[in-house]
Amino acid sequence: MDERFAPLFTPPYYAVIFTNQLAENSGGYPEMSQQMAALAAQQPGFLGVETTRDSNGLGITISYWETESAIAKWKAQIDHIGAQKLGKTRWYAAYTLRIAKVERNYCGPEGR
Amino acid sequence: MDERFAPLFTPPYYAVIFTNQLAENSGGYPEMSQQMAALAAQQPGFLGVETTRDSNGLGITISYWETESAIAKWKAQIDHIGAQKLGKTRWYAAYTLRIAKVERNYCGPEGR
Repeated sequence: MDERFAPLFTPPYYAVIFTNQLAENSGGYPEMSQQMAALAAQQPGFLGVETTRDSNGLGITISYWETESAIAKWKAQIDHIGAQKLGKTRWYAAYTLRIAKVERNYCGPEGR
Repeated sequence: MDERFAPLFTPPYYAVIFTNQLAENSGGYPEMSQQMAALAAQQPGFLGVETTRDSNGLGITISYWETESAIAKWKAQIDHIGAQKLGKTRWYAAYTLRIAKVERNYCGPEGR
């Protein structure tokens, strides 16, 4: 499977669904986004991430975690806090964050 | 908030996270995708949907539902079954489906 997909994991595990609209002036965002992705991947309990963004700047990033406490620790990670502040003040026109417990997962196409 | 965002709902509710890579020949897909979005919106228990896709064809669509049984009924809806078959045989090179229970949600930017 394409490496841009997160693989299936054994439920239950957790998803952070981050839907976001980039602001018109989002200078510095690609660099910080890459840094944060690399940093997230080093955190205990990190499982994987999927991200895509269309030409209008609407992005969805979903990170997957073993536990809720791993998500809480990532939220409190010091460099990540700096990025969160810049996200609020500069990069994002709007965003939603949803924390969800993944109960089942499948992949396809199968059975062709 | 931009209408491409689903609003926040009162947890718990359910998310169907559909990550997918379009096949190279995906003729007919945009029309069917629009039809299925309109049909989903008519189903009992449907709350909302968010979707984005990048220029490489990697898409993430998240639909939100009141209950797991609403998701099961949508999965079994007859026109949707036809679209699922075409998705497997024609449109998607790969996909993952994850069913998750949303436990918390937030929006931003706030507190600027």
